Amino acid sequence: MTPALETLQKQLKQLPGIGYRSAERLALHLLVEKPARLPELVAALLAAEKNVRRCAVCGNLSEAEHCPICTDERRRTGQVCVVEYVQDLAAIERSGAYRGRYHVLHGKLSPIRGVAPEDLNFSALLQRIMSGEITELILALSNDVEGEATCHYLTERLPKSGVKVTRIGFGLPSGGGVLYADAVTLKSALEARRDYS
Amino acid sequence: MTPALETLQKQLKQLPGIGYRSAERLALHLLVEKPARLPELVAALLAAEKNVRRCAVCGNLSEAEHCPICTDERRRTGQVCVVEYVQDLAAIERSGAYRGRYHVLHGKLSPIRGVAPEDLNFSALLQRIMSGEITELILALSNDVEGEATCHYLTERLPKSGVKVTRIGFGLPSGGGVLYADAVTLKSALEARRDYS
Repeated sequence: MTPALETLQKQLKQLPGIGYRSAERLALHLLVEKPARLPELVAALLAAEKNVRRCAVCGNLSEAEHCPICTDERRRTGQVCVVEYVQDLAAIERSGAYRGRYHVLHGKLSPIRGVAPEDLNFSALLQRIMSGEITELILALSNDVEGEATCHYLTERLPKSGVKVTRIGFGLPSGGGVLYADAVTLKSALEARRDYS
Repeated sequence: MTPALETLQKQLKQLPGIGYRSAERLALHLLVEKPARLPELVAALLAAEKNVRRCAVCGNLSEAEHCPICTDERRRTGQVCVVEYVQDLAAIERSGAYRGRYHVLHGKLSPIRGVAPEDLNFSALLQRIMSGEITELILALSNDVEGEATCHYLTERLPKSGVKVTRIGFGLPSGGGVLYADAVTLKSALEARRDYS
């Protein structure tokens, strides 16, 4: 392997989900098998770096000051779904089950990984609440200790504004059997039981 | 998702082993989580594109006219191991089991996938044989119909030069049990049986 190839493999290996073998395969794919794709990939990377930024309102990725979701007038204005990552927003959008707005925190509180409140997109959310635009805050944070802590931190700091705060339901995933569910999921599912009659 | 992000995801999804989800994750990793890595990756891609080429002798990747293996005087000159891909060469090098030279064909004959002899690095190999530098040709091509056809094609076209031609052994892989071996492997293993006494 040549030095430039080694550098490229090292860079690729740092990416999430790319191991030693995948990095080698990707590098050789771009250099030997499909060399025409390399400049296309570089152009796409540079264009994304140049054009994509965070929406000033909600923190979603955008190529304008405000993202398409914040400027879509057909969406419910008062309902704001708080998510950890842009990927979470994308997953909820794919489900088609939600027509309100979002707020992306870009992470969750984690003392162990050194994520403090000031590392997250909290202040913009508090500003949105202060401005009175929000009537319901749906906390779509993960079902773990860190998600729990983030929800707790957020509700503690909410101004007495009459905003309704809900958290998404937890339980058995669609198509999941009780047999295969882990203990925490089953605990959540039992706690979230509803009248069925 | 913004247009620039979609273009980037589409480019990433074209790479081998990268699906829809991985492409999204990689794009957001480079734009949101670790934006400092994006220019580093672009620089590594461009440097590799600019500097890495094929060795004029063996077809291995190189940053000079001749690759480090072809110019290494401590390696056996007369022994040439013929492989399909640069990855195969890298795998044999990692094993540490070989100290001769290589010849990379950059593929194997495949009428189905439209790979003809002129698409492969054959002529440079015939030149090397003509020049008399080679005493043994080790065919390290894959144990399948296409590898077989490539070996056959190559040996048919070898000049009457007294070059010894061998093919690497086939059989049960290290750590593999007979129970889990497929029929073709077992057939190869039985055919390749050796005296044991």
